[in-house]
Amino acid sequence: MALAFHFHPLAASRARLSPPHLHSAAGAPSPSVALTAAPHHRLRLRRRFCAVVATAAASPAATTEFDFNAYMGERATAVNRALDAAIPAGDPPAALHDAMRYALLAGGKRVRPALCLAACAVAGGPEAWAMPAAAAVEMVHTMSLVHDDLPCMDDDDLRRGKPTCHVVYGEPIAVLTGDALLSLAFHHMASVGSYPPDVDPHKHPARVVRAIGELARCIGSEGLVAGQVVDLEMTGTSETVPLERLEYIHLHKTAALLEASVVIGAIIGGGTDEQIERLRKYARSIGLLFQVVDDILDVTKSSEELGKTAGKDLASDKTTYPKLLGLDKSREFAEKLLSDATEQLAGFDKEKAAPLLHLAYYIAHRQN
Amino acid sequence: MALAFHFHPLAASRARLSPPHLHSAAGAPSPSVALTAAPHHRLRLRRRFCAVVATAAASPAATTEFDFNAYMGERATAVNRALDAAIPAGDPPAALHDAMRYALLAGGKRVRPALCLAACAVAGGPEAWAMPAAAAVEMVHTMSLVHDDLPCMDDDDLRRGKPTCHVVYGEPIAVLTGDALLSLAFHHMASVGSYPPDVDPHKHPARVVRAIGELARCIGSEGLVAGQVVDLEMTGTSETVPLERLEYIHLHKTAALLEASVVIGAIIGGGTDEQIERLRKYARSIGLLFQVVDDILDVTKSSEELGKTAGKDLASDKTTYPKLLGLDKSREFAEKLLSDATEQLAGFDKEKAAPLLHLAYYIAHRQN
Repeated sequence: MALAFHFHPLAASRARLSPPHLHSAAGAPSPSVALTAAPHHRLRLRRRFCAVVATAAASPAATTEFDFNAYMGERATAVNRALDAAIPAGDPPAALHDAMRYALLAGGKRVRPALCLAACAVAGGPEAWAMPAAAAVEMVHTMSLVHDDLPCMDDDDLRRGKPTCHVVYGEPIAVLTGDALLSLAFHHMASVGSYPPDVDPHKHPARVVRAIGELARCIGSEGLVAGQVVDLEMTGTSETVPLERLEYIHLHKTAALLEASVVIGAIIGGGTDEQIERLRKYARSIGLLFQVVDDILDVTKSSEELGKTAGKDLASDKTTYPKLLGLDKSREFAEKLLSDATEQLAGFDKEKAAPLLHLAYYIAHRQN
Repeated sequence: MALAFHFHPLAASRARLSPPHLHSAAGAPSPSVALTAAPHHRLRLRRRFCAVVATAAASPAATTEFDFNAYMGERATAVNRALDAAIPAGDPPAALHDAMRYALLAGGKRVRPALCLAACAVAGGPEAWAMPAAAAVEMVHTMSLVHDDLPCMDDDDLRRGKPTCHVVYGEPIAVLTGDALLSLAFHHMASVGSYPPDVDPHKHPARVVRAIGELARCIGSEGLVAGQVVDLEMTGTSETVPLERLEYIHLHKTAALLEASVVIGAIIGGGTDEQIERLRKYARSIGLLFQVVDDILDVTKSSEELGKTAGKDLASDKTTYPKLLGLDKSREFAEKLLSDATEQLAGFDKEKAAPLLHLAYYIAHRQN
């Protein structure tokens, strides 16, 4: 049964949120609130963000604000274009390609690709270098959704407001769609054809190898799959799940891929080992934050708002943060994670780190 | 219903088979028949093959024959050791690791890893460089078996003489085991820890990137998965499947990974583009050969001999080469493919190419 309160996931503690280092005047930025910054900074930011997304028209009169919505929208457009180009429409086997496109191009905010691109930029690389990696993390994410939704797993009929892959294409094609998306992620990262014409992926093959290793690690028995296995084990049990167990599930099922998205971007961008590790810590915090907020939203929002079956965790007796800690403590925990994440950005160039800072706030404050 | 004749798959045409270029005196080598060769050649071959497999004891009195069984046995031992080390036993999540080990360490002849290692050597590389890739192709192969055996796919209960993964561990774990093995393959190829202590994988990162791209390509909508999709579409239909369609299935479902195994080995070994393409042609022929022989064995051997459910293709009304061409024509086709494959080896050093030649004959003459 869905509980349909309308509230901000961190509403109770929002007053205490403020970005720790970007600038003191801004208050807590949110996706819909433009951030004030010194005019010359804003201008340069705007220009760089437009420059890496070829089809996003640069406004003739450059705006004087860092526009988070525009930042995300431009990146989503570019990532969607890369995903669209990666899977031929209509080519045989048509059923497979159709199902892959259905699952992959179903919308979504492309948070993981945005994290990957933003981390590449903060690590010093041209953002375009990380576009194949950004597309790859979305492919992996989609694959995990398609398989987790299967009747033998979470048995979910609704995803992003649409019937799930196996509902539309049948179970065999859904299993194979996941397999194909998973392998496509690695093919995409390793192929010259995935990179923009002016980017030579063979210029830094060691970075690509390291990034591929990082992506692969976050999927299997140290990542997504491990989280799903333990999650399945916990579902429907009457025993009280200890907090450490819940964190294990979330760190693996959700945080691992968010961590990989950031770390891969940082590697491709040429970050130092020290920078990569700081960004890894940032990513771990927002990864757990993402799931805590997800749990909170599940008990407080309707299915229509979420685009997926709400209250499902409660109905299936799954352990969640609100169930274990209560809503208020869950929000406090989320607040702490947000603070931990943003602290890790302190040593980076403020302009370059702005997108990652905004992404952390966005993850904390999102409504679905 | 299984038909239990005992015969050699290529028995009808065996008299016409002779290795096209190795030496005229040998006749058709088979896995159990040692090949005669000039004594100094034999000695050097034996030494090199022993040298790359550290734990395989070199016979103090080096034998004077190229021993194919020993060659395969040594490589299977080394590959099994690499696979065993790649998956921690007992570590959490235990059910997942157990299932991965159950599926991966169930035996099997490790033909794909052997092809990978042999291709690396023929392309000029130390064989040890290709060991992580050899383990990776076996992980991918196992993943495809685990998913193809699922109830919603081919619904197979028996594999390599043992209950299939989902029978033992349940369907959700079987799906996740496949996902974990697939990602582990890429992790294994990309990780420093997978390589022997004296091998620096970062020495040739561009080769690793190219090899990873090749492996990824053969899995998804251009490889294994595409073959399985079209295979599922054909199963149980009353229409006559044209030969091109059957070849499409086999080229994707079976040949693609055999091709990748060879090509990846050649890339890691440092082969020229021209060498790699010749080895690709060799691999395509033995890939199709592998499936034609599989089809022949399915209608002519018992389940006990095969270690899997025999006559299944016939029972499920699947189109096979024997069904489409008859047994004699199927054998002739296999013979032609064997000849095409061995022709591609003509330009390579005879000693170095001997394992690939023997592997082609082995694939043609195997009994299960």
